[in-house]
Amino acid sequence: MKHKDKGEILDVAIVGAGVSGVYSGWRMLRDGTARTPPRIGVFEGSDRVGGRLLSLTPPGMPDTRCEFGGMRYMSRHVLVNWLVEEFHMATEPMPVGDPANIAYLRGEQFRLSDLNTASTLPYRFRGAEKHVVNDAANSLLLFALQQIVPTCLGLSHDALLIEVRTAKFQGTPLHQLGFWNVLARVLSPDGYAFVRDTGGYDCLVSNWSAADAIPFILADFGANVTYSRFPHGYDEMPQRLAQEFVAAGGQLHLNTWLRSFDAGALPDGTQGVLLKFADGATVAARKLVLAMPRRSLEMLEPTGAVLDPAHVGVRALIESVKPIPLFKIFLCYDYAWWEAVGVKAGRSITDLPIRQCYYWDTEPKTATSPGGAALLASYDDDLSVSFWEGLRKKTAHTELWESQRPQATAPASSQDWSWHQAPVAMVEEAHRQLMEMHGLSSAPAPFAAAYRDWTEDPYGGGVNFWQIHARSWEVMQAIVHPRDDVPVYICGEAYSQEQGWVEGALQTAEIMLQKHFGLTPPPPMVPPLSAAEQAHRVLRSKRAKTAKAS
Amino acid sequence: MKHKDKGEILDVAIVGAGVSGVYSGWRMLRDGTARTPPRIGVFEGSDRVGGRLLSLTPPGMPDTRCEFGGMRYMSRHVLVNWLVEEFHMATEPMPVGDPANIAYLRGEQFRLSDLNTASTLPYRFRGAEKHVVNDAANSLLLFALQQIVPTCLGLSHDALLIEVRTAKFQGTPLHQLGFWNVLARVLSPDGYAFVRDTGGYDCLVSNWSAADAIPFILADFGANVTYSRFPHGYDEMPQRLAQEFVAAGGQLHLNTWLRSFDAGALPDGTQGVLLKFADGATVAARKLVLAMPRRSLEMLEPTGAVLDPAHVGVRALIESVKPIPLFKIFLCYDYAWWEAVGVKAGRSITDLPIRQCYYWDTEPKTATSPGGAALLASYDDDLSVSFWEGLRKKTAHTELWESQRPQATAPASSQDWSWHQAPVAMVEEAHRQLMEMHGLSSAPAPFAAAYRDWTEDPYGGGVNFWQIHARSWEVMQAIVHPRDDVPVYICGEAYSQEQGWVEGALQTAEIMLQKHFGLTPPPPMVPPLSAAEQAHRVLRSKRAKTAKAS
Repeated sequence: MKHKDKGEILDVAIVGAGVSGVYSGWRMLRDGTARTPPRIGVFEGSDRVGGRLLSLTPPGMPDTRCEFGGMRYMSRHVLVNWLVEEFHMATEPMPVGDPANIAYLRGEQFRLSDLNTASTLPYRFRGAEKHVVNDAANSLLLFALQQIVPTCLGLSHDALLIEVRTAKFQGTPLHQLGFWNVLARVLSPDGYAFVRDTGGYDCLVSNWSAADAIPFILADFGANVTYSRFPHGYDEMPQRLAQEFVAAGGQLHLNTWLRSFDAGALPDGTQGVLLKFADGATVAARKLVLAMPRRSLEMLEPTGAVLDPAHVGVRALIESVKPIPLFKIFLCYDYAWWEAVGVKAGRSITDLPIRQCYYWDTEPKTATSPGGAALLASYDDDLSVSFWEGLRKKTAHTELWESQRPQATAPASSQDWSWHQAPVAMVEEAHRQLMEMHGLSSAPAPFAAAYRDWTEDPYGGGVNFWQIHARSWEVMQAIVHPRDDVPVYICGEAYSQEQGWVEGALQTAEIMLQKHFGLTPPPPMVPPLSAAEQAHRVLRSKRAKTAKAS
Repeated sequence: MKHKDKGEILDVAIVGAGVSGVYSGWRMLRDGTARTPPRIGVFEGSDRVGGRLLSLTPPGMPDTRCEFGGMRYMSRHVLVNWLVEEFHMATEPMPVGDPANIAYLRGEQFRLSDLNTASTLPYRFRGAEKHVVNDAANSLLLFALQQIVPTCLGLSHDALLIEVRTAKFQGTPLHQLGFWNVLARVLSPDGYAFVRDTGGYDCLVSNWSAADAIPFILADFGANVTYSRFPHGYDEMPQRLAQEFVAAGGQLHLNTWLRSFDAGALPDGTQGVLLKFADGATVAARKLVLAMPRRSLEMLEPTGAVLDPAHVGVRALIESVKPIPLFKIFLCYDYAWWEAVGVKAGRSITDLPIRQCYYWDTEPKTATSPGGAALLASYDDDLSVSFWEGLRKKTAHTELWESQRPQATAPASSQDWSWHQAPVAMVEEAHRQLMEMHGLSSAPAPFAAAYRDWTEDPYGGGVNFWQIHARSWEVMQAIVHPRDDVPVYICGEAYSQEQGWVEGALQTAEIMLQKHFGLTPPPPMVPPLSAAEQAHRVLRSKRAKTAKAS
């Protein structure tokens, strides 16, 4: 292995080949101006690049990518948009709400269009809530937010991020309040239950920092939000970043599990960081980037100049977020049986443990493949994840669900669908709940099924949310370089203001790269030029062309 | 400190002065037949004896004991009953359900007596469920259990414990099934919600081993269950055990935190166990008893002959249970305002985060004390605990709730009420929810408030439940001596078949004491004598008396 080369010193060792890790390596090599490019190694514990982006191809549906991790982005996400352009990635709009889609609540089937008729819903709304519910989709949630931060709907996302730093609710700063605690004050008990059940997620209205929850939710549920997704899979983005990083001279090491690290003297006598891997290999580096979420950081040995528990400040930074359990299961059917009940695209919701299903994609039968229809049968969080955990096998490789169709041979890597095959009991239960929420007595059994439970190590959760009392806007600046005197840096989605989004991973990587690696901001982060400056540049560019041509 | 005496070798070191620890020490000294009593030390990390039994006296109510941990026992609990007799402890019946008590569900107030009229309840029951609900209290839960184990209502508790080892549901052994997963198959969505909401606990119907959940619930919610409590406090039991243990020559060391242990050579050259404490002290012992729940075991350094992760079998035993978050808060008022709405004793329930309240005790005004009325304002679990955690202060000692009444000076120990004083925001919210569920617009503010969140280290949870796939009946026998060749033993509530009860702690202590310390069963565990044997003993006893008298 390259990284065992005796005496070699890396300029930067990056641990974690999730999107923040490979992006950081790519940026360092792309924007470098040094005559000799820096020596950079990316070390990844698993067998693949992508982290919590995982796009899998079901058997018999070669043109379909099922997203088991991150699955979309918003128009507001400037860094993701930039990479999409850089890599000419195909994208398509991703529908979410369709009035004809289903809301199966408290054992009754409704359509999303019914959710604006308070009097017919099995929730006991109180006072003004009834009228608010009748207004529009998500209006009760927005009504609640307005009671907490009255100006919130009129502010831009950036302005709101500033506002919540000092905003108070009944005299207490928002960041010292749990979002559930505050919602309990501004909504009736069933008003809260309705917002939770119809929002599709439990975690969003759980007890995380109210100062972070409010802008997060407004960005996601506010007006004019459009989502896009990737027909070739979102994990193509980190894979392209990794390819270009390697093409530019970067080293990429998979199946390389970091055990511990410490500050120390490098082979050339200078000070740096020494890394120890699970296979016994050691690496010397001038700088170390930990591109990891909280749980991964906590799985490293708690020793050395950064992670020793004696550094209580570092520990407080790391513990300022909490991992949120997230679970996804995809079922593939011969045909889209759901179209028979009038649903075709986007999301249906329920308070059953499957919580949300997305009508994902269909693929026609061809000469070489049987085609089919894929359904994100459940996208659920928090307590519901424990429901599905109960249907896992104790031992991973027994009694997995197998279709009648011919299966691929043993999976070669976790990039294969069959690596993530779901157990029989889990498939049957997900199918049963689908039948119940769609009001059907039966449908043909699925021919393929796979799942991902992101609570598994080393992820701890699918996303991370800010803890109550954390001053996120300060922590996200501080944690990128947690100890002034040690060249160790931390980045990733966990400690960002776009938690759960790729944009958050890139955001914290940029803070780190610009503040501590001397990189200039990428194009989307450069402020728009003034008219005069634009004219000046055009002129200069024309002159240069003229000079060249002459 | 005694335990630093150089060269001293204990015969048994017991770590943990919860009820299983002090009981074990007491039993070893009480029943010993050796000429020289064994040298036994009990080492406790906190400043008090009692563990998860914590009975506190509110200010101004000197005759009231509020139970922040275990609070009652059942007539079936033979070992607890035995200790009650041994120590002549005062007990009194503890009422739970009163038909006039409140059930505040989905924003509507009902009385417990209303819960048998399915048509008026805001739950959408399906098919037979409607009739079942109308039968009696808890009938829907019992109906569900019968669908899983048809014979369960007809079996004795002991017979049922045997039955569930081999019972199957739809072909799968019960211990491989999550209880929530099974309930989802035998109840409608709202049927399950009703059972959960009206049961008062979320954890009981959560995803733990169905094989353990069913006998547990039947013991608690079945017919003819009577509860008793302790007017002088349940923690008097471990304190009496500790006193008698010390009086018989045992050593008791508080504020003594075990850091790690390993098998090794003792000062006399024999093999035993070496303990290292946080203050640097070391202790040599021939045998070590860890009287601790899972989380406490996991806080020890994972090294040595038992806890090194290489011993995968030991780790599997330890991880066969999971700690359950439990939270209690008591509020004390000048008078019992709840009596105005017709409730006086026992428990009211709600789906609000307070979940259950118990009308605890009242104390008349006397010449020396102002008296008052104490309310267990919330006894809640699982997700609700995260609601109350949001109302804790980040730093423990700021902005605590203070009454108008004079307060005691700074608390001397965690045995003092004021040590556990609740923050203002928590008290206000608990009071607000009490008003809401009782349908009152206001009541005088409480004059004292204290809480206990058992998720805090080193407890991890208030009780422990068996994981799905654990064969509890085998684990509880195996974990008392997890490695054949190392004299280390584990006991306590966590790995028992009476989890969450003192009886469970004593039960596993007895398994350990009888199997591995050679003790004979205590009187309540001796099988009843045959008539012939009884006659024989009476005769022998008479002869002995005659011999003495002559």
